[in-house]
Amino acid sequence: MAVDCLFKHAHLFTLAGEGVGYIPDGAVAVTGNRIIAVGDTNQVLADLAAAGNGVIKQEIDATHQALLPGLIDAHIHTQLGLLRGVAQDMHDWMMQGVLPYMLELKPRWQILSSQLTVMEALRAGTTTFGDFLVFPDPALMEFYLSSGIRVRPILPVFEIGPELLAGGKLYQLDDHMGQASYNEALRLYAEYHGAADGRIQCMMGPFAPDFISEKTLVKCKDAAAAKGLPIQMHTAQGDRETEQMEMRYKKRTIPYLDEHEYLDPEFTAVHMTMANNDEVHQVAEAGSKLVVCNGSIGLIDGMIPPAIPFQEAGGTVGLGSDQAAGNNNCNVFNEMKLTAFFGKMRNQDPTAMPADRALRMATIDGAKALGLEDEIGSLEVGKKADLILVDTRHPTLQPVIEDPFNLTANLVYAARGNEVSFVMIDGRVVFDDGKLQTMDEDAVIQEIRETVPSRRKKVGFM
Amino acid sequence: MAVDCLFKHAHLFTLAGEGVGYIPDGAVAVTGNRIIAVGDTNQVLADLAAAGNGVIKQEIDATHQALLPGLIDAHIHTQLGLLRGVAQDMHDWMMQGVLPYMLELKPRWQILSSQLTVMEALRAGTTTFGDFLVFPDPALMEFYLSSGIRVRPILPVFEIGPELLAGGKLYQLDDHMGQASYNEALRLYAEYHGAADGRIQCMMGPFAPDFISEKTLVKCKDAAAAKGLPIQMHTAQGDRETEQMEMRYKKRTIPYLDEHEYLDPEFTAVHMTMANNDEVHQVAEAGSKLVVCNGSIGLIDGMIPPAIPFQEAGGTVGLGSDQAAGNNNCNVFNEMKLTAFFGKMRNQDPTAMPADRALRMATIDGAKALGLEDEIGSLEVGKKADLILVDTRHPTLQPVIEDPFNLTANLVYAARGNEVSFVMIDGRVVFDDGKLQTMDEDAVIQEIRETVPSRRKKVGFM
Repeated sequence: MAVDCLFKHAHLFTLAGEGVGYIPDGAVAVTGNRIIAVGDTNQVLADLAAAGNGVIKQEIDATHQALLPGLIDAHIHTQLGLLRGVAQDMHDWMMQGVLPYMLELKPRWQILSSQLTVMEALRAGTTTFGDFLVFPDPALMEFYLSSGIRVRPILPVFEIGPELLAGGKLYQLDDHMGQASYNEALRLYAEYHGAADGRIQCMMGPFAPDFISEKTLVKCKDAAAAKGLPIQMHTAQGDRETEQMEMRYKKRTIPYLDEHEYLDPEFTAVHMTMANNDEVHQVAEAGSKLVVCNGSIGLIDGMIPPAIPFQEAGGTVGLGSDQAAGNNNCNVFNEMKLTAFFGKMRNQDPTAMPADRALRMATIDGAKALGLEDEIGSLEVGKKADLILVDTRHPTLQPVIEDPFNLTANLVYAARGNEVSFVMIDGRVVFDDGKLQTMDEDAVIQEIRETVPSRRKKVGFM
Repeated sequence: MAVDCLFKHAHLFTLAGEGVGYIPDGAVAVTGNRIIAVGDTNQVLADLAAAGNGVIKQEIDATHQALLPGLIDAHIHTQLGLLRGVAQDMHDWMMQGVLPYMLELKPRWQILSSQLTVMEALRAGTTTFGDFLVFPDPALMEFYLSSGIRVRPILPVFEIGPELLAGGKLYQLDDHMGQASYNEALRLYAEYHGAADGRIQCMMGPFAPDFISEKTLVKCKDAAAAKGLPIQMHTAQGDRETEQMEMRYKKRTIPYLDEHEYLDPEFTAVHMTMANNDEVHQVAEAGSKLVVCNGSIGLIDGMIPPAIPFQEAGGTVGLGSDQAAGNNNCNVFNEMKLTAFFGKMRNQDPTAMPADRALRMATIDGAKALGLEDEIGSLEVGKKADLILVDTRHPTLQPVIEDPFNLTANLVYAARGNEVSFVMIDGRVVFDDGKLQTMDEDAVIQEIRETVPSRRKKVGFM
């Protein structure tokens, strides 16, 4: 078996085992879409020679590069990218801020939003997207295929539309909408699940416990179980949800989900900012996962998501950028940094949420939160070849010191994302030489500039 | 009078008056090192023609660029840049984390540190540095001159050395060290104050109230008053300081400084994380300024600096990155973002510390904190030509929407710093075409890589 690509002499972060798995002079060998060797460069070269692996088609000298697993954005709505910055520094962000614009996003703008978001994220080393769809759309699936990204499309089921805007009252749930979105979710599942040799793998996405009826909640769980799909759901995400749950069911969200047997290892909750400590423990102890979106929740709510208590209860926490409309960033480096900062703030303790933990949350723990830990999240033999190089010669990452080792801290606290020099997903190069290899970036930016007028005109969707 | 450089068709943020002074299609004309016209592009062109200003030597079409005053890092120790990431996620950062390495920084590494820091900062649009010297050194002053940056060198006076490491006890102050550093401060002042047509203007820097004797505190104030220099001082920056002040003087820091008539408009306090609410009000009401370092204090202490209460008391607050050794970043975009986030966290309110306020803190308020508001901090006729262009075509800043206006929010929450495309200081281009025009960046990085060994060796200064 020939080696398609050998990376050598890297600052290698395998993220295998405990800690960050640092190997000072490391190598990774890739054949097809899989990793076939990982370790010290000399050892890997010797092992490959001894195994008679034959020709090495391409060698990449990664001296001065950090080599990491591709970063994982475990919760994002790529379709909202064009709303970056339209709703900021305000109360009632969802109802008054983003929803009025969101509802007016034309299908073409939804795709441009996803393209813009993916451009930003890929250039910052994100290789896997837990993309929670807002608008179920086959065109988005086709973009996943062409762009080369790894995606968990989270197929949304919802029974609520603009009525949401009428605050305070119990929402009118729309059974027809619920049925239609459920059917569309199953249709997209049937057509795209497992596509591109498993690069596209769906999840079931009952939108939020207050956005669907009890009947639909059960139906989603049953369908997910039947098809072996994990579930991701916005959970305990705000006062509004708590109020709705108490009005409709006389229960808080977590007990309600528990009663419907949602709290199991196949379930990933997003946000949980409104969960109390007992509820955080209950979800973690059930083996469910959590995705926190520090940038988004910080700006939208001025709150710190419960990553630390969830971890203290033994749970696994991944990171999500949520969307450009609230966070303004779709950049896992940004999330790592904010997650570490917010942890320290929460505990008023600089040792809280250290850099190595944030890096794990952006990689292997994110993979667990998406149910993909057997395939990605660390650099190990047999896993998919999703990896990035980060050029340490940028001023922001200098100097690199071995003892005391400073590179983990600098990747988390100093890197901005633009130090990423190379991205491979599923064995395919998608970013190199400063350019995305699978998208016409200039065309995307130009179309955005031409169709989202910038000056002295009301934007079409506004 | 000819125009040396005319910027036109920019998204212009003048920062003049209240708010951010946005002009959708704006122009700035520069002659020599001064701004001679600012406003709507057509108006500026008409005014220049009517005034018979003659030839326009260079026109820069800034369509798709945000044009801003150069950013102001009002408190930074550039000489610690090589310590990036060596002391992280720990308690007792100063004593146990950074000081052991700092004391071993050879003079050449001190200069390399400053060069690295300035490279990072200039590329992120910082034009003015409140550089609090750790090691008084004429070579640093020469670097200021050659690099073209605007600097308030804050000339340090201190009477304490490695004894600091003995925690808990009252420090031994060293009168000889105080005398020597005071003399060196005055020598550097005499040689460099006002150099490069005022681009270098010194401040007096009694290091911290617990680092100098009462006698030296008074001497610094007298010298500053005699020479018309403002004072910057680390103030109420930690438990250790409070303990020392109470042991030595039976007083807390702010009453002690008040008693010595430090609290006046010529005084800028840095940090004040340990000041209580009454003390914050007292300092603000005296007309003294505050510089907060959110990135640094957040990582080092897990604390939120008192920017909001200081502003509520009517005070002016600038931003500082402090140093790479604790913050890991010397990037005012990063400080703007963290300042806004931390404000929202502090108040648990997403409307707290809005984007436009953060942008003012990074520009005009930073200028006030350095006593330079008559020269810089906004784009107004007669001010020095310190300005930056930020390319909005980066994915991180797309789209640009006029209504609802999203660019201020995106500059603060989305920009990473690397979107800066052009930097002019004092009428001189220092960054353009992706390269610093006044420094050999590759040579700096190469020397760092060669002299700060990265692998499997103890670093010399460690």
